[in-house]
Order: sequence, then structure tokens, then C-alpha cells
Amino acid sequence: MNSQGKGDFASSDGRVSLAHGNGGRRMRQLIEELFVRHLGNALLDTDADAAALPPLPTGATPMITTDGFTVDPLEFPGGNIGSLAVHGTVNDLAVSGAEPLYLTLNCFLEEGLDLGLLDRLTASMAAAATEAGVKVVAGDTKVVRRGEGGGVYLATSGVGLRRAGLDLGLGRIAAGDHILVSGPVGDHGTAVLLARGQFGLRGDLVSDSASVLPVTRALVDVPGLRFMRDPTRGGLATVAHEIVRHTGMGIRLSEPAIPIRDQVRAVCEMLGYNPLYLASEGRVVAVVDPASAPAALAAMRGPGQSPDAVEIGTVGCEEPYVVLETEIGGERLIEELEADPLPRIC
Amino acid sequence: MNSQGKGDFASSDGRVSLAHGNGGRRMRQLIEELFVRHLGNALLDTDADAAALPPLPTGATPMITTDGFTVDPLEFPGGNIGSLAVHGTVNDLAVSGAEPLYLTLNCFLEEGLDLGLLDRLTASMAAAATEAGVKVVAGDTKVVRRGEGGGVYLATSGVGLRRAGLDLGLGRIAAGDHILVSGPVGDHGTAVLLARGQFGLRGDLVSDSASVLPVTRALVDVPGLRFMRDPTRGGLATVAHEIVRHTGMGIRLSEPAIPIRDQVRAVCEMLGYNPLYLASEGRVVAVVDPASAPAALAAMRGPGQSPDAVEIGTVGCEEPYVVLETEIGGERLIEELEADPLPRIC
Repeated sequence: MNSQGKGDFASSDGRVSLAHGNGGRRMRQLIEELFVRHLGNALLDTDADAAALPPLPTGATPMITTDGFTVDPLEFPGGNIGSLAVHGTVNDLAVSGAEPLYLTLNCFLEEGLDLGLLDRLTASMAAAATEAGVKVVAGDTKVVRRGEGGGVYLATSGVGLRRAGLDLGLGRIAAGDHILVSGPVGDHGTAVLLARGQFGLRGDLVSDSASVLPVTRALVDVPGLRFMRDPTRGGLATVAHEIVRHTGMGIRLSEPAIPIRDQVRAVCEMLGYNPLYLASEGRVVAVVDPASAPAALAAMRGPGQSPDAVEIGTVGCEEPYVVLETEIGGERLIEELEADPLPRIC
Repeated sequence: MNSQGKGDFASSDGRVSLAHGNGGRRMRQLIEELFVRHLGNALLDTDADAAALPPLPTGATPMITTDGFTVDPLEFPGGNIGSLAVHGTVNDLAVSGAEPLYLTLNCFLEEGLDLGLLDRLTASMAAAATEAGVKVVAGDTKVVRRGEGGGVYLATSGVGLRRAGLDLGLGRIAAGDHILVSGPVGDHGTAVLLARGQFGLRGDLVSDSASVLPVTRALVDVPGLRFMRDPTRGGLATVAHEIVRHTGMGIRLSEPAIPIRDQVRAVCEMLGYNPLYLASEGRVVAVVDPASAPAALAAMRGPGQSPDAVEIGTVGCEEPYVVLETEIGGERLIEELEADPLPRIC
């Protein structure tokens, strides 16, 4: 899928570009070829949402994750950068099979930021933390000069516990496994795009930003569960490519099966985006063994959870590609995200 | 000391100002009156360098801390933002009496950043982590638009373990305790100022940015140790005010005893700064009971550690002020840092 070899993470001028942050190939290469080259160690797994620390005497495994957040605008229908930061970090732990317990919070505030806005963002953060049952136990604030900080950047780390015996990960995926998604994809990315108002488009679409704990808690009790991930930056297509890259197996996705809201589809058609690359912030992609797929779907669709959960594809087609089976019976390859085709939304 | 009451953290125009990030009164008020009001919980202690999580079955206490880093220039004599981030986080755990184990790393990279520079920063981070014996176990990278990110902002969280039975903190400080410092103060702040070259000043001063683990490991074996802190943002004066605010007791510092390099003193005199507010990034302020002061000093001065460690003052004068006894036998009050008198250096 990728004609370029290693060592090409640098853009032609040797500088960081927006594509280094889009979740796609160049970001992955920057991480692997620069950060991991220097900082790599046995516990650092760049393919995981959260790192597993050595187990406690109780058998439970402490899990730790970290995430940075930049979003424009800072407030959007369905959330803001504060709730987004909590949901993003909680969800990285949740899809790793952990119960989130503690968060740390870093705020980079731009000189001139409205304190009323900061108060609203912090209140949303608190509400999201309370709902997810996590405590913010440490924080830090830095103020950067006017014009240098995009208003607010947040960086959060999260610590949780994964119960003894729960083994999830890309390495557990096997040929024939089924791929499920808990609800429509691309809502968050599209809602943020619309909130900018810069395309002359309007709509009532709301970001899906939310804790996925209700879904992941139900799924971890399904014995055939192999792997979970939240399709954030880079979208569903990027999760599919992560599976292909790690397992060496191909993926077939059914285009008609993938839930995409009409409004997301319409905005993408108008602007020339593919919704499969757009971020969701409250969805779970789950990979399960075939026999467990009905139980996993039932768990995802449980009361108060995701009635729209569906099966969207399978793992294990012969070539290590992501193949989309289209509505009219054709096939299309879904490429890994390359240069930045999308406005920055997270 | 402070004629203004609560509720005045907002500047007159209701916006974030640089003083909200300087480590002084307005920053403290922003944290207490906005962040803690929303996010407060039993584990969040804004007076501590690291939060103590519930103890493990072994009796050891997991400690967690977080810090954001912005520095201009990104590289300076004696370090760069990469090594600084590792030292800062390692040191917050060290002065809490913990052995640092794991770090998480968030990078906010500005579009256009030179990748060679990023490589050097990451290499320094790796070297600092290796020296301190910590592993970077999780990371995240965001790219922000050109002009919006100051080159690189870093946010690091750290996790460590404090051994069973070790009890340190502001709450343990008692009247009559002695205050020690492990070496000259203000080197980092002054070195960064000089590295900007904007004052027409030059010098060979090197930042003291370093892990303080050798000092803190020696100190935790001194039975009379009450409290340790690294005098970073806001400097030694701010540590003194934190002690006064928390204990309600005053502090007397001996001006001639406080180690300040001639070059730091000269730069401060020329620019009108007080070196007591300038950051160090490799020093420890320790509070010990009087009988233990000689043992603590000996521990700090041990091989490969801090030969310049000295006693600089005592806790427990009558009024809750920070009093500086001057060389000529007079007394001067050291105020809490107010509006931002200092260029942003961390």
C-alpha cells in the first residue's frame, strides 16, 4: 500500500507539517522513526491506546495513557475541548479494557483567553470526569503569549486498572474475526467542521463526544472479545489500517453496513472528504471471534448503550489491504491517510 | 501580605494574563478559584508536587504528577525543553520522596518546526530519562498551525512509588525547623534569559537543569526530614510563601547565606530582577527538624551530589511573613510574586 520506505517521515524541507499530526502514515513514521528511536523501551507500545504497566500483586494491570487536545472552535455542538479531553483519555483506557481511575491535566492557556470561556470548559471537564467516575488528581497551567496558543491546548494522562485475566490487543486478532462498530462514524469531525461556519454550511449535527465505558464494560464480559479501539483521529479507516499493519491480514468492510448519518454523508460529499477518515469521539470498534459476534452485538446494544451497533466487516481476506465492498457489489481499496486532506479537528 | 481578597483572580478585563502563569498569587488564585472549584476532590492537593494515590498492598504509595513546558529559546546552555521536561517531572516525584518509574509525553509541535531540532530535543529527553531510570511508556503528538505553537510545547506526567512509612509534606513542618538549599538558586532562569540575547548581555552561565534524585535519595534516609520542594517557577521566594501560607508560620531567610552566583546577581541587578524569584531546575529546598540539620546537610553534600548545600533559614518567626535578614543586619519582607515582573522562562 505504501510505495515509500522508512526514513521518509520528513517532509522535503525537513520540517514538521500538518500531515505529521493527522493520524496517518506520516504521523506514524514520525513517531516510530524519531520518538521511538530515541525513547523506545519494552513498555512503550505505539500500537496500543494505553500502556500496560507491571501487574499489581492483586493480578490487576495498571494502564496508563496520554493525549493532547487542540480543537477549533473550542466549543462545538455536543461538547467542548474540556469534555473532549476527558472523554478522549477515559476512552483510551476503556477500549484497553481498563476501568479509568485518575486523570492528570495540563492546560496551555493563551494570554487574552476569556475567563468565562475557561470556566465553561472546566465545568464540562468536571461533569465528564464525574460521569466517568474519574478524579483529576494533578494539574499544571502554563500561560503562553498572545497569538501563540490557539486559545487552549489541553494534555491529559489517565491511569486505570484492567482486571486480572483480561487479554485484549491487536495481537489477539485472528483470521475470520468479525468487526463491529457501536454507532455512526464521523459525527464529531463533521460537527466540528460545521461549527466553524467557514464553508457556508450549517446543520444541527451534534458531536458524538462521550464516554464509551457503558459499551466497553459490557463488551469485556463477552469471552470472544479480541480488541477494541475508538476511531478518533484518522477515523475508522485508520483503525482498519492499524489492524492490517499489525496482523498482516486484510480487512473487508461492507460499505452499506457502515453507519454514517445522512448529514455527515452530505457534508463529506460537498467538501470532498471521505467520512471513513473523520473522527468519532464516542464510538467503539470491536473485533470478536465469529461465534461471539451475536453476543457482542447484544452487549453493545444493551439498555442505555448503542442501539445502532452493527457488524461492518471481517478480518482475514488474503491481501493485506483494507477493501471496501460497495453497495453495487464492487470493491474499492481504502488507502492509509497520507498528506492532510482534512481540516484539523482534534 | 495580600490586600486583595478571594475572587480577584480575573484581571480587570476578565481575561487570562501572563501573570496567571508566573507561579505567583494570581496563578494560585486561578487554580484554586476556577480549576479546584470545578475539579476538586480528596486526592487533588494543589500544594503538593505530586498526588498520592491509595497505597498498594505492599504499603508503597503510587505518586503521580504532571507538568507543562514552554521555554524560549527551546535550546539553552545546559539543556533544552526536552531534558527540562524530564527533569521537571522526575524532580516533582523526587521531592515528594518517590522513586520515578514512568513518564507520559505529549508534544504540541508547530507546523514548520525543524525536524533536526526535534531530533535533538528528543535525544536529550531520552538521555535524561535514562539517567533518571524512568521509561516513557505513552505519548501523543499534535501538530498546530504555523504561528500557533511556540515551536514546541511539552506536557509530561510522571508516576513513581514512595516507600512505605515515608511521610513528607507541608503539614509536617514545625516551628524551629531549618531550611536548607542544595545549591545556588536562579541559574536556570538567568541562563535562559541570557540565551535570548535580547538584553545585549552575554555570559557563560549554564542552566542547573538536572535530576535531583541523588540529593532526594540521600535526604529521605534522614529521619528528621519534613518536606522537600524544587524551587522552579517563582523561585525560592515562592517556595517560602507556600510554606508560610500552608503552615501559618513565618520564615526568616539569611540573605548572605543564600547561594547566588555572581553572574546571576549581576544580571538581576542590571535588569532589575530579584534572583529569589528566578527558577532553578536542579535544586532542592529541604525543611528538617533542627537536630537533623547537620545530618541533612551532610547527606546533601555527599559524593557526586551538592557540595554547595547550605542552611539558609528557619521556620517559625512570629508573623506569617517571609523575612529576609540582610547582610548589614536589617530586615526586608519578601512579597509573594504578583504581576509578572519576569520574562517567561518555563
